[in-house]
Amino acid sequence: MKHILTVAAIAATAIIPVPSACLAADIQSPSGTISLNAEVIDGKPTYSVDFKGKAVILPSTLGLQLADGPDMTDGFVLTSVETSHFDETWHPVWGENASIRNNYNELLLHLDQPEHYRKMDLRFRVYDDGVGLRYEFPQNGVLTYFIIKEELTRFAMTGDHTAWWIAGDYDTQEYDYTECRLSEIRSKMSEAISSNASQTQFSPTGVQTSLQMKTDDGIYINLHEAALVDYSCMHLELDDSNLVFTSWLTPDAQGNKGHQQVPCHSPWRTIMITDNACDILASNLILNLNEPCAYEDTSWIKPVKYVGVWWEMIGGGKQWSYTHDLPSVKLDKLDYSTTKPHGLHPANNENVKRYIDFAAEHGFDQVLVEGWNVGWEDWFGHSKDYVFDFQTPYPDFDIDMLNEYAKQKGVKIMMHHETSASIRNYERHMHDAYALMQKYGYNSVKSGYVGNMLPRGEHHYGQWLNNHYLYAVTEAAKYHIMVNAHEAVRPTGLCRTYPNLIGNESARGTEYEAFAGNKPSHTTVLPFTRLQGGPMDYTPGIFELDMKKVNPESQGHVNSTLARQLALYVTMYSPLQMAADVPEVYNRFLDAFQFIKDVPVDWQESRYLEAEPGQYIVAARKDKASDNWFIGCTAGENGHESQISLDFLDKNRKYEATIYADAPDAHYIHNQQAYVISKKKVDAKTRLKMKAAPGGGYAISVKPIN
Amino acid sequence: MKHILTVAAIAATAIIPVPSACLAADIQSPSGTISLNAEVIDGKPTYSVDFKGKAVILPSTLGLQLADGPDMTDGFVLTSVETSHFDETWHPVWGENASIRNNYNELLLHLDQPEHYRKMDLRFRVYDDGVGLRYEFPQNGVLTYFIIKEELTRFAMTGDHTAWWIAGDYDTQEYDYTECRLSEIRSKMSEAISSNASQTQFSPTGVQTSLQMKTDDGIYINLHEAALVDYSCMHLELDDSNLVFTSWLTPDAQGNKGHQQVPCHSPWRTIMITDNACDILASNLILNLNEPCAYEDTSWIKPVKYVGVWWEMIGGGKQWSYTHDLPSVKLDKLDYSTTKPHGLHPANNENVKRYIDFAAEHGFDQVLVEGWNVGWEDWFGHSKDYVFDFQTPYPDFDIDMLNEYAKQKGVKIMMHHETSASIRNYERHMHDAYALMQKYGYNSVKSGYVGNMLPRGEHHYGQWLNNHYLYAVTEAAKYHIMVNAHEAVRPTGLCRTYPNLIGNESARGTEYEAFAGNKPSHTTVLPFTRLQGGPMDYTPGIFELDMKKVNPESQGHVNSTLARQLALYVTMYSPLQMAADVPEVYNRFLDAFQFIKDVPVDWQESRYLEAEPGQYIVAARKDKASDNWFIGCTAGENGHESQISLDFLDKNRKYEATIYADAPDAHYIHNQQAYVISKKKVDAKTRLKMKAAPGGGYAISVKPIN
Repeated sequence: MKHILTVAAIAATAIIPVPSACLAADIQSPSGTISLNAEVIDGKPTYSVDFKGKAVILPSTLGLQLADGPDMTDGFVLTSVETSHFDETWHPVWGENASIRNNYNELLLHLDQPEHYRKMDLRFRVYDDGVGLRYEFPQNGVLTYFIIKEELTRFAMTGDHTAWWIAGDYDTQEYDYTECRLSEIRSKMSEAISSNASQTQFSPTGVQTSLQMKTDDGIYINLHEAALVDYSCMHLELDDSNLVFTSWLTPDAQGNKGHQQVPCHSPWRTIMITDNACDILASNLILNLNEPCAYEDTSWIKPVKYVGVWWEMIGGGKQWSYTHDLPSVKLDKLDYSTTKPHGLHPANNENVKRYIDFAAEHGFDQVLVEGWNVGWEDWFGHSKDYVFDFQTPYPDFDIDMLNEYAKQKGVKIMMHHETSASIRNYERHMHDAYALMQKYGYNSVKSGYVGNMLPRGEHHYGQWLNNHYLYAVTEAAKYHIMVNAHEAVRPTGLCRTYPNLIGNESARGTEYEAFAGNKPSHTTVLPFTRLQGGPMDYTPGIFELDMKKVNPESQGHVNSTLARQLALYVTMYSPLQMAADVPEVYNRFLDAFQFIKDVPVDWQESRYLEAEPGQYIVAARKDKASDNWFIGCTAGENGHESQISLDFLDKNRKYEATIYADAPDAHYIHNQQAYVISKKKVDAKTRLKMKAAPGGGYAISVKPIN
Repeated sequence: MKHILTVAAIAATAIIPVPSACLAADIQSPSGTISLNAEVIDGKPTYSVDFKGKAVILPSTLGLQLADGPDMTDGFVLTSVETSHFDETWHPVWGENASIRNNYNELLLHLDQPEHYRKMDLRFRVYDDGVGLRYEFPQNGVLTYFIIKEELTRFAMTGDHTAWWIAGDYDTQEYDYTECRLSEIRSKMSEAISSNASQTQFSPTGVQTSLQMKTDDGIYINLHEAALVDYSCMHLELDDSNLVFTSWLTPDAQGNKGHQQVPCHSPWRTIMITDNACDILASNLILNLNEPCAYEDTSWIKPVKYVGVWWEMIGGGKQWSYTHDLPSVKLDKLDYSTTKPHGLHPANNENVKRYIDFAAEHGFDQVLVEGWNVGWEDWFGHSKDYVFDFQTPYPDFDIDMLNEYAKQKGVKIMMHHETSASIRNYERHMHDAYALMQKYGYNSVKSGYVGNMLPRGEHHYGQWLNNHYLYAVTEAAKYHIMVNAHEAVRPTGLCRTYPNLIGNESARGTEYEAFAGNKPSHTTVLPFTRLQGGPMDYTPGIFELDMKKVNPESQGHVNSTLARQLALYVTMYSPLQMAADVPEVYNRFLDAFQFIKDVPVDWQESRYLEAEPGQYIVAARKDKASDNWFIGCTAGENGHESQISLDFLDKNRKYEATIYADAPDAHYIHNQQAYVISKKKVDAKTRLKMKAAPGGGYAISVKPIN
């Protein structure tokens, strides 16, 4: 079924030739909160943005440097202007809301660069909560192919805002967020960088998008991009003397930043602007700037709640590999028959059956199994080409039996494809690997791109790789397979167009709690930043939070209370949610586990009740399939006291709320498992006072009783 | 059918521990003509080679520089030595001879590099006509993965030999050969370099292999490599002060020259040494150093004689493209329905049928059709990724009809896959493209790699691409498809192991005669150099040699007489031979064309009767399927007078020779089509005096009459 518009798109277009004296155009958002000015000043395309009458983006130039021709930065004249209005409501296959309104005013500037006989268009879409702008290169100029040396889109700030940022990097996004003034970024850069399997920073003031900022007068600004297709991923380089950001694209193996063929356009550069943090979280700007669903039939795409053979390795010291006898593996000569199993391989028949039993008993859809396929003894760090075949199971993983066993229990096994960033190898095996999945009834794959890229010299976020990630998704669609790609480029709303892109990692996930830990505030920032582009496979649900109890050798500590782990199923929106801890732990806390069993992964409606980046987020969501509501709160180091109104409930119904709260003395360091579960009758008039411990949170399920 | 040994391999191995005082080992070839000494001098592995008591390779060091660890050039100790003898006769699927003897003595040196706890073996195979040596990296050292910065295999010459060379280049081999002293290479380098679609020279004294040399005392030396698998291609850098060559590998996008995982080994570095030029041509050293056939069933691999829709474009000004209306093509949005055909597209139904008719009438197996598939309007020079899909025919090429038409006539169409060096795109479409071939009964493909490489920064002869070329061949084998890859790496005898690699270009072919011309001596050098590694799709058979008569705008001139064009079917051994000119030209010279019709493409036996690089080559070959013999002579600028004995004929039979000779006044510049055909009764006692004009030649078919 192709995406259906319930409200017909309303579009009115006016083409206005520009008199030679008039070199500026203005446009306002539908309700007038945001206004944008675009003009050509001394031949340079320039724009600025106001919010409720206050400047938010000072006049900032736009343009590109080319590697194979004169720059497209100046010498421009504005030849004509088009304005239009658009308003539609559309229905995502899955999402935070069952319907989304896409309502903007558009300004299209036609520019000539007469000295070089080239044309360039600038398209601006102005929403009530932000702006999208992009470069367009029409076919009617002399330009056909061009190579981008750098894109020079500027975002001139009005002051030394507070920012929540991670270091600019061509290969990883797995950093903790730093909160500081823009002027402090340079001094905080080195402590902001932790080690990763593949990482390439480019500047002491370079940061990634989505970048969340807040002005001293309480305006929230978020910079990101939407619809990143056939282009390299954008970072932001800060001129910290002038507080101006400039786009900084990811280079290819030759140092160029993009190969383009007209007609083409850049991704959207997005600027969200609100005076309420909740409105940033509620914004659909990124999704709206993406194209509608590309698939005719989406009936095979279904949100997934899953458990998996994973945390045993991440936190428990178990292994993906099968033996210690093969420190160097050549896949085409591999023979496990003479090797001694090391006995630490949880992707084995008995253990997987245990997870299948647990999933079936508690209503989970799928069981992820990592380490099921041969080659893990030697998979990382050697720029190895033929690292996995994605098809051959380990001797102790009986793929026929386990898939049959799962099927009988009404559960699916979730496929795992770690590529080790060996892209050619993955593409060579992809179709056979997808066909194998189809044969056994797998309908989703978690893929991974750990380590330095092959082709050598390419980076995780370059155009070459971005094309690969999308190829993996669109080819998967041919097999009705959903993709959850880890270490891939950060999402930019492409899940609207390709909704089988059911998840991504692209940030520091729960796994880091077992390594070096995430800051207690981490989950109060991610929804402002990483989640703007699409869902994250954050893998919450860790109940045994002191990792030393899991593995005496562990240095990790989950910087969270148990109650907050429940809340994350609401605050971290995703159609793909894992209950990441192991069955034996959940069996010790079945009362708390009930929330994870109850919480849905697809929603009718979402509301953000309270939010402040780095401090707290409180979200309420209504199940897509029932009248149940779920509320979650995650809090940073200071904890949080909520005053929430349940006025979103149906005024004609009564409900019972089950409240999973931090105990009064709970604390994310020394008293993590202290929670209290209580029940309470509530209705639309109820106001709840709730308290989250430091690094804590709460979760509430609200079910109608009449 | 797997390769059968008719003579059981004879192998005797002796392991000799090396006393601490003894650091040298010697070995001789089976009949003692060549002797090799290998020793460790001051920790450096060193070898030297003598031929009939004369030094040919002076003491030369061996080793590798690593990019990720200490070098493997010194600090070695010799721990033990193994010697063995090997003698077998094997039968290639196709070839110059139906059986080939592989007879050598082997010396294996086990080396330790104690400071770094590493091991390295050096394996030498000494034949009566040359030496193969390679590095081997066993698994029992501490070395597992390593990155090659440079291989430093030295070949110290004994004097200022004459060399026939082309410029070292990472991306093209399509240069004319230069003949000069080693000491003159530097001064002749700039004139040796002509322009090409992709080219990257690295040094003013860098040359390619196979490099043919001749000493002042008449010894022929040839340097090349064998079995180039999972390694980057070797060039030779000349220290022209000391007359020492050093290996120079092709770098990857990051400047490294190879990623290796033990156990592994380098390709063989080969040194052919003879005192007769014919023996260089007759040598099977390169094939013998390759592994036996990797395929169980080779019944589907068959030599091919073909015509094709090709010379019309190369020489005749016709086009691969269909229209001039699409200067910029995006394949996924391509629509020819509104374009105007330019009318210069010979890959159309009527013309292809004409070629099929011609092929059927004259007994050719196949008809190559280039320009059959969409995208040629915009295929080159823009680092374009999605350049072809290898599956969609042009509107005027009815693939169903034409393959059915060909089938009815007993002819096959030959597939054409130009990749534009966009490797990822080719691999993404390869399986569907091969499946399409299988559907329509195509069993061979001419592939091409024109232009700069994608992945960007990689080179045509780097490890990454070498892996691709072999992948294309082994994947094709799964579909029973034979591959003829143009612009791929120069062959190194891999056709023994993978005999569906039926041809390569990898040198300046006949097409250049239509562009800037080849030197008249070109075909007297290629069998010494390019053909050492495997057959070349040289595409001879041009009868209309003055290109101005074909296309008034042409600057080309085929530097050959017509009779020499016939001879090339004998002198340029290949199981894949094209009659490259157009039917209407052949129809004007049907008497001469008879030789092309008669000449086979697979042989029982081959003999080189007279040869001198740059001057002349006379070869005689016996048909694999009959008692017919075919003789060919190609001559350089000076022409050639032959005195040939037919003593290879069966002494009990009488024969009729049909002689296709240059007319007395023939000349490659001003009287090219002057030929005389005569018939003569001959037998094993016959001696023929023959004369080739400047840039001329002759061809003789000898058929038994009793």
